[in-house]
Amino acid sequence: MKLGRFFYANKTFFGLVEGSSVKVLKSLDPLKISDQSYPIEELKILPPVKPSKIVCVGLNYKDHAKELGLELPESPVLFLKPPTCVIGHNDSIIYPQHMSSQVDYEGELAVVIKKECRNVKPQEADEYILGYTCANDVTARDLQPKNGQWTVAKSFDTFLPLGPIITDEIDPNNSPIKTYLNGKLVQNSNTSNFIFTVQELVSYISSIMTLKSFDVIITGTPSGIGSMKKGDVVEVEIEGIGKLTNYVK
Amino acid sequence: MKLGRFFYANKTFFGLVEGSSVKVLKSLDPLKISDQSYPIEELKILPPVKPSKIVCVGLNYKDHAKELGLELPESPVLFLKPPTCVIGHNDSIIYPQHMSSQVDYEGELAVVIKKECRNVKPQEADEYILGYTCANDVTARDLQPKNGQWTVAKSFDTFLPLGPIITDEIDPNNSPIKTYLNGKLVQNSNTSNFIFTVQELVSYISSIMTLKSFDVIITGTPSGIGSMKKGDVVEVEIEGIGKLTNYVK
Repeated sequence: MKLGRFFYANKTFFGLVEGSSVKVLKSLDPLKISDQSYPIEELKILPPVKPSKIVCVGLNYKDHAKELGLELPESPVLFLKPPTCVIGHNDSIIYPQHMSSQVDYEGELAVVIKKECRNVKPQEADEYILGYTCANDVTARDLQPKNGQWTVAKSFDTFLPLGPIITDEIDPNNSPIKTYLNGKLVQNSNTSNFIFTVQELVSYISSIMTLKSFDVIITGTPSGIGSMKKGDVVEVEIEGIGKLTNYVK
Repeated sequence: MKLGRFFYANKTFFGLVEGSSVKVLKSLDPLKISDQSYPIEELKILPPVKPSKIVCVGLNYKDHAKELGLELPESPVLFLKPPTCVIGHNDSIIYPQHMSSQVDYEGELAVVIKKECRNVKPQEADEYILGYTCANDVTARDLQPKNGQWTVAKSFDTFLPLGPIITDEIDPNNSPIKTYLNGKLVQNSNTSNFIFTVQELVSYISSIMTLKSFDVIITGTPSGIGSMKKGDVVEVEIEGIGKLTNYVK
């Protein structure tokens, strides 16, 4: 099942994506599909969800840890991004030039939570996951080391592109993930390099905080991070989800 | 003006607090007061707002910096707590004994945002502030140094008591602030010890992220932090706001 959030004729709605057609949903849980459908080209694609919180995982790829010469963490490194970071497919990342002169892409797999949960066991995690989408954990790298906390570097408006759609049809722990900068492949890995699987992350995070419907977990970036400048196009592609395209402005 | 959020007879509402009486608000902006009022003792006091995000300031008291032997930061140290942390006056802080054996209180002044803003100048900040309340930035101290990021230590459910009410009748940069543990005074300072004033904080944070109506900024803790155990009562008192009381369970 492929789901998206769309805008058309002053209305915002969830839709079921089938090829190039989108069927309007009457309800997501339980799933009720209406008769109405649109060609996807006629719709503005919105961020697939409006999360109440975004939990982010630091180092979670073995290849990235190796690249940085770091030991594997014993438990996930967590931080938060505010909901005001979220933008959608084809939206612009606004370069915060008043504070930063090094803004990096970080292509990531995002997990979207289906229903409220707490203290979930890894083997039960799948029933609380709505699906997966692409994310770009945009980071003002030059602000990151300052004072240790990553919040300033990672919390600028527009610093979390999400999309284009959510799918539950991939294996989240064995999916090719690629980032392109101006068409050039700059990150190329597979989520099979995860240090902590998606189910382990949902379990660990939900042992700390209640996860709500549509909350988002972004699962860390592989090797190959680098900087963007104004005018650049950045794309995060995960097989089975599609390409999340954004412009740096 | 003193505002609170209350629950009575299956309804949640904002109310204007006048002595021991609460007048039900029809609307907060513009302020419309109904004829209906209740004695405050009959109402459950809820957290005064449901924030979309909570921005927290690290080291922001000169006395606390001195106590720790730290230099004053050049810009505010920021981190986020998730909305799932928020509890109200008289609610219980749940000790996360599955992960921590050192849970600390941190009494703080909280700023509540009135309306959406971005890039606010310090001299304009007051028009975007609804008022002030007490906060307790509960922290699993033994989890804080782990991996540098403070998110795990500070994000457990119930780790942000807020309340009891919001007032705009105090000078936020010159208010006595006290914390009591089981009735014993453990923190005793004044917000005149702030390194960054409330207006400077609103300005700085809004230069990074859009602040929304009812978002909360907690402004750092003074010297005297310490641990709590199950069965303890912790109170944060700010003159002109009142006492925020919580139980450790």
